[in-house]
Amino acid sequence: MAKIELVKNALGRLVPLSVNGKEQTPFAGVDKIKPKGKKASPPVFCSADYPKDGNKVVRNLKEAFELCGIRDGMTISTHHHFRNGDFVANMMFEVFKEMGLKDLVWFPSASFPCHITAIELMEKGIIHHIEGSMNGPLGDYCTQGKMRGLGVLRSHGGRWQAIQDGEVHIDIAVIAAPSADPFGNANGVNGPAACGSLNFALADSMYADRVIVVTDNLVPFPCIPWQIQGNYVDAVVVVDKIGDPSKIVSGTTEITKSPDRLLIAQLVADFLEETEIMKDGFSFQAGAGGIALAFVLFLKEKMKKKGVKARFVRGGSTKYLVELLNEGLTDYILDGQTFDLFGVESMRDNPRHIATSPFTSYNYNGKGFFGQFVDAVVLGATEVDVNFNANVVTHSDGKLLHGIGGWQNCLFSNCTILAVPAMRDRIPVIVDEVTTLTGPSELIDVIVTERGICINPKRKDLLDKVKNSKLPIKDIKTLQKEIYEICGGKPNPHRRSDGVVAVVKWVDGTVIDSIWKIG
Amino acid sequence: MAKIELVKNALGRLVPLSVNGKEQTPFAGVDKIKPKGKKASPPVFCSADYPKDGNKVVRNLKEAFELCGIRDGMTISTHHHFRNGDFVANMMFEVFKEMGLKDLVWFPSASFPCHITAIELMEKGIIHHIEGSMNGPLGDYCTQGKMRGLGVLRSHGGRWQAIQDGEVHIDIAVIAAPSADPFGNANGVNGPAACGSLNFALADSMYADRVIVVTDNLVPFPCIPWQIQGNYVDAVVVVDKIGDPSKIVSGTTEITKSPDRLLIAQLVADFLEETEIMKDGFSFQAGAGGIALAFVLFLKEKMKKKGVKARFVRGGSTKYLVELLNEGLTDYILDGQTFDLFGVESMRDNPRHIATSPFTSYNYNGKGFFGQFVDAVVLGATEVDVNFNANVVTHSDGKLLHGIGGWQNCLFSNCTILAVPAMRDRIPVIVDEVTTLTGPSELIDVIVTERGICINPKRKDLLDKVKNSKLPIKDIKTLQKEIYEICGGKPNPHRRSDGVVAVVKWVDGTVIDSIWKIG
Repeated sequence: MAKIELVKNALGRLVPLSVNGKEQTPFAGVDKIKPKGKKASPPVFCSADYPKDGNKVVRNLKEAFELCGIRDGMTISTHHHFRNGDFVANMMFEVFKEMGLKDLVWFPSASFPCHITAIELMEKGIIHHIEGSMNGPLGDYCTQGKMRGLGVLRSHGGRWQAIQDGEVHIDIAVIAAPSADPFGNANGVNGPAACGSLNFALADSMYADRVIVVTDNLVPFPCIPWQIQGNYVDAVVVVDKIGDPSKIVSGTTEITKSPDRLLIAQLVADFLEETEIMKDGFSFQAGAGGIALAFVLFLKEKMKKKGVKARFVRGGSTKYLVELLNEGLTDYILDGQTFDLFGVESMRDNPRHIATSPFTSYNYNGKGFFGQFVDAVVLGATEVDVNFNANVVTHSDGKLLHGIGGWQNCLFSNCTILAVPAMRDRIPVIVDEVTTLTGPSELIDVIVTERGICINPKRKDLLDKVKNSKLPIKDIKTLQKEIYEICGGKPNPHRRSDGVVAVVKWVDGTVIDSIWKIG
Repeated sequence: MAKIELVKNALGRLVPLSVNGKEQTPFAGVDKIKPKGKKASPPVFCSADYPKDGNKVVRNLKEAFELCGIRDGMTISTHHHFRNGDFVANMMFEVFKEMGLKDLVWFPSASFPCHITAIELMEKGIIHHIEGSMNGPLGDYCTQGKMRGLGVLRSHGGRWQAIQDGEVHIDIAVIAAPSADPFGNANGVNGPAACGSLNFALADSMYADRVIVVTDNLVPFPCIPWQIQGNYVDAVVVVDKIGDPSKIVSGTTEITKSPDRLLIAQLVADFLEETEIMKDGFSFQAGAGGIALAFVLFLKEKMKKKGVKARFVRGGSTKYLVELLNEGLTDYILDGQTFDLFGVESMRDNPRHIATSPFTSYNYNGKGFFGQFVDAVVLGATEVDVNFNANVVTHSDGKLLHGIGGWQNCLFSNCTILAVPAMRDRIPVIVDEVTTLTGPSELIDVIVTERGICINPKRKDLLDKVKNSKLPIKDIKTLQKEIYEICGGKPNPHRRSDGVVAVVKWVDGTVIDSIWKIG
């Protein structure tokens, strides 16, 4: 691993000035760095070079890559709407092997344990490095320092920003599509591998030089809705099966049974009621984890009791959000991804269940994004420090095991709530310093644990609102002390190596922190 | 008017090498010119410079223009979904006057008689010239040679191409919206001035530096569907009334009562049946003129009788297309604009009635466009020559009175039919040479008049199909002779001046013909 020059950024974190040969700007504070350039501009193509009859179907993925002029060193993207049930990236890996390619950059919107074959390709030099979220074994591989290039973690909005601004140029985008027509129009709501939206691949389709759609459900033109428009697509490949439906809509949608976590969910709902954030026309976002789902149920009861209706709720959607919509408790679901079949069906059939893209919801380098004015968002974290900075990508042992998802983008909400257990496996979650700083304190308003609620001192308005409430409001240092006592004292700090293996980007493209080699 | 250097293009038409200071490529033949460049790239903006709460409403249009930094010489665009019922362009003209601006280029997707005030602004030097379709008095003004710059006529697809390729840079787009939210999301399907789609303004929203949405129906975020996405929008202006609904859905939707024109419509339907273009899963496009509407009714009867269902029909939609959809005679309407309230309501309520943009349907400089594989299209023309070249913008007296609309783009259909009366006011429609060559013969397959059907000799397949039919197939020169006899001989050719006042662009951005000063 080459020696990399490091500097301290505005949060005091050591970050490299260069990543994979590209110059970097260290994080300078929220809203401090303004973009100066112009948007990336893909080549202009000519319809005369495409089939007159609109039929872009080629025999197989290899032929599609040949048509798209694949070469060593190119950047190839995929999307992660199939999560751990994706087959298409693995098919692509097989073609890379067969074609004897080298030094490719794989740019997924996220990678999952099912993509473990990527390790073999990295070992063989076929893939140079992965640029994108790495969940599970691939993140582990990265933190072992085995990747030739640095990992680059971006939020969903940050990925849009990077593509839009030309920081990442995609040579070829591969878009797995549950439904597509021969022209390349595609959607995720129909077909055996239906996953809901395809919008994590929208920027890829718009800005990549070449685009390949892979489907197991070819329908006659027009494939409606055309979440991906065929006018961006070069080739369509039909395969037997693009994914495992049971893993596409995956098991993160169980409501927690843990009494501690149920208590956290209840406290979050109580907090929204007490602060009057829950009021007619309000909006909220909660993820698909066990706490978030329970929170939705608790909040729903309160909404019904008070006769309150939301203007919109923000998905990742699940059965529970769909029920809110169907019961008239919200006007709309604005949905980045569907987490279960109820979500998929609702997105397909209910015109008030809207598939959103990271452009509308999350892109910081735009004329606003609606994540800015969601009234409250309930997120998780692996660690929070006593100054309200938080970590969502690494564990306390330094292992990179999670992607950022939309987490950083959601922090811009009017009220950002981290709903976390006070400890995990007797390791305190509230720490002096987070292993990786993914989200800066000025955007994190409230920490809710089973042992109390801490409000960021900057949010005097929220402190005022709860002054006379029965909520267990605590100073964060007091809570930390309590937790330390239960866990047997202050935890041993993780001993950091001096080798950077990956960086975490902030929503504006600056580097907010580094991830260090372990083991 | 400065002397302009003219050259003959591939069709032998004299065209300028420079238009309004920009170098031009003469038309070189269909599919002959390939684009080499990259797409236009608007500046990257930063959400920190926009209201945190997403509320972009400003007090009035003047304030919006100030916010957008309007200056002399800028290019300002509008859309024409309100047709002759638009109020917003006129409001804009008033602001231009008030602000004392000069030398602006007005770049509408089309202009109508209601925009006659533009003449006053051109006389005063406020507007330098109009770049876009000019219907009625503005076209007349242009052909009188009174505009300081040259007019530039483009098809709907050509307008997208010009914006996308950076030939036209829009400084500020003004988008009249029947519904909008404070963030700038907007649609045309709801509100008192509902017009259906807003997609003629889609390229404007994506590529303009600055975007202003003007609405008379502000709804809370989110305005769904967001045909125009607020993430492209700088300011929202609320006014009393953006248009006159009775003129927005205008009177072009009457079925003809003329026996001659009914006969033409019947012959077109017969032709589609005889040639077996009308078959299960086929597609067609017909406009909103009297002949086209009658054709739809005749074809519908045939479809019902033969049990044939279309895969899609292409709008401009009217009641008659909506009935096809509602009666299950087509799977989809793919709709560029709605011509009556039935169309608007259907687009709003029926998920199979899809608002399309010129990008998907018409953009030649893309990876295909679906206009290429519509099975048959029925269009009008002001003149056709004996070689099957056609004119759609000027009359035989040289007056520019019509825009191109999607006409040029539609010519790429598998079977392009011009349905025209043999004569108008005793002036033959089939001529030796068209006044303005808007569409080249190689893309025009069939001419249907009340006095016979002429098939382009290049379409041997179609000639074969009708060989034994009872259709009145005629050689075009024979038909021309017949018509000349009725009209009292060969018409006097229009005497052309040597002053170019406007150019007609082909779909690839080249110049296919010039329009000359008259009077």
